[in-house]
Amino acid sequence: MNTKAYGAYAGDQPLEPMQITRRASGAHDVQIAIAYCGVCHSDIHQVRAEWEGTLYPCVPGHEIVGRVTAVGGQVKGYRIGDLVGVGCIVDSCRHCDDCESGLENYCDHMVGTYNFPTADAPGHTLGGYAQQIVVHERYVLRIRHPQQQLAAVAPLLCAGITTWSPLRHWNAGPGKKVGVVGIGGLGHMGIKLAHALGAHVVAFTTSESKREAAKALGADEVVVSRNAEEMAAHLKSFDLILNTVAMPHDLDAFLTLLKRDGNLTLVGAPASAHPSPNVFNLIMKRRTLAGSMIGGIPETQEMLDFCAERDIVADIELIRADEINAAYERMLKGDVKYRFVIDIASLDA
Amino acid sequence: MNTKAYGAYAGDQPLEPMQITRRASGAHDVQIAIAYCGVCHSDIHQVRAEWEGTLYPCVPGHEIVGRVTAVGGQVKGYRIGDLVGVGCIVDSCRHCDDCESGLENYCDHMVGTYNFPTADAPGHTLGGYAQQIVVHERYVLRIRHPQQQLAAVAPLLCAGITTWSPLRHWNAGPGKKVGVVGIGGLGHMGIKLAHALGAHVVAFTTSESKREAAKALGADEVVVSRNAEEMAAHLKSFDLILNTVAMPHDLDAFLTLLKRDGNLTLVGAPASAHPSPNVFNLIMKRRTLAGSMIGGIPETQEMLDFCAERDIVADIELIRADEINAAYERMLKGDVKYRFVIDIASLDA
Repeated sequence: MNTKAYGAYAGDQPLEPMQITRRASGAHDVQIAIAYCGVCHSDIHQVRAEWEGTLYPCVPGHEIVGRVTAVGGQVKGYRIGDLVGVGCIVDSCRHCDDCESGLENYCDHMVGTYNFPTADAPGHTLGGYAQQIVVHERYVLRIRHPQQQLAAVAPLLCAGITTWSPLRHWNAGPGKKVGVVGIGGLGHMGIKLAHALGAHVVAFTTSESKREAAKALGADEVVVSRNAEEMAAHLKSFDLILNTVAMPHDLDAFLTLLKRDGNLTLVGAPASAHPSPNVFNLIMKRRTLAGSMIGGIPETQEMLDFCAERDIVADIELIRADEINAAYERMLKGDVKYRFVIDIASLDA
Repeated sequence: MNTKAYGAYAGDQPLEPMQITRRASGAHDVQIAIAYCGVCHSDIHQVRAEWEGTLYPCVPGHEIVGRVTAVGGQVKGYRIGDLVGVGCIVDSCRHCDDCESGLENYCDHMVGTYNFPTADAPGHTLGGYAQQIVVHERYVLRIRHPQQQLAAVAPLLCAGITTWSPLRHWNAGPGKKVGVVGIGGLGHMGIKLAHALGAHVVAFTTSESKREAAKALGADEVVVSRNAEEMAAHLKSFDLILNTVAMPHDLDAFLTLLKRDGNLTLVGAPASAHPSPNVFNLIMKRRTLAGSMIGGIPETQEMLDFCAERDIVADIELIRADEINAAYERMLKGDVKYRFVIDIASLDA
């Protein structure tokens, strides 16, 4: 099946319209007409070959929402017309301990939604900046939000689950004090979700100008992290700090804010290393420094259902596909509140 | 009360005999005639002013065992003649969440056994290289080992609990694969305790010559960490790695050996920073890097009782007090198997 897409032929080329092919639906496959696709910072790194191993042509996009247009004969969970989503994962080994625990994101054989080897043409996966996608039903999510929210649901498939998974794993909830560092695509979802889970939420930003915006997202308090006095007021008080900032920075400034057994989870990996954290800050209060990568399929469904029940979506700016290169430039300047989403209908324009 | 001790008057002076005073026993105090005191690497750092804030005269020693010689009127748990121990902690606030959780080691007002401010003369605590000590009963441990093992019990009070606490906290036991990095005072206890807890134990050493010794201590496998092939055979397989090495080294070599949700706990803090660990190694398997500092009083008693039941003690070399300066030099060369213990009776010689 041929489908229109938007992608790049090389790391130094802008994204442009292209035709790609999708595999014919297998017995367990769901064919999806994509309505919207969110734009993740990873998309820029990968398509511009800032990370190693980009395969071209490269079609980014792993925050995919749309409607089912065909299902294979063995598909049990979905019917034509259903609203569905696809996140960062389209395949995995399905039998390792990670897969059996519903943590396909940690499977050694996880297949990402774009830029991973596959038997399909052209030999690597192609993402959601496209009109159609075909995915095994095990990796398809049900969307229970009303259709008019669909565009704003798209970022839940990556920014949402990437913050939800560590919040749940480290038990964010009533009685817990949770920090969220960075108020961007991930951070704004982290604040919304931690707040909805009942935690006392403190947002950390380097920018005084984001103070009111962070409160509007659900932060109980906002700390400007450049302000030493504001930081000191929170020493040894956090159960969990979720750090969404991928630029190298001083982790000790946040480790020292954790109480005994507190955890600092990093969901962004900087291109060059953070300054090495001071081991004393880990030892003194039995603190932990952890990482977390997206989330598994069952917890992604759990998060989507939680958000549908509570009317939670991302804050987005809808763009046409031909605005994607300009959108990337704005993202690099931090000029987006808080996620761009491509209206895939614009590919027909 | 005057008592003989061994200590230093300045960081550049050797340790020498000195007279110190202990407070008169209060209502809740236990007075102890010290029989043996273990020699911890921290003793060297502190007495030589390699760490900040050493107060002189400095009498080190926090692996103390002996016999009760007097008890205050309100003391309920101990009688004259009891075999007892004192570890790294002689006081704390007693009412914070840490103290109430039996984790006095994390109390912000913990008073260490030496070099911490106190109302007693000379204004800071003096440790166990001495004939007598007076300690509030809350911080005194009962020793159930037979008296002839007493010297070898001493190191359990620091080296034992420092490894026991993280092994228990991170659930070392049957079905778990546990690594112990470094086979010294702490590491040799880590191997013994992890083995006794039922874990599959892998010892890591830089030295081929320690292979058989590590097996004799209870290691199921030994890996020479300079051997890349041996290391690679254990990729993504550990639940827990306990790292006792305080020299700066590559933490990624051990982080990558952890399975999903695996933990690397550091119990030694290097004087200069470790190379900064690669954040991807934390993110990819939701791994955690943690610290741990000694342990609380209840878990120290639990460890002592566990060791008494299973006939576990440290491997020691007994020395006279006047051999302490030479012993420090040997420790700095790694020439001790695996802990020096001072025979306090030699202070009378």
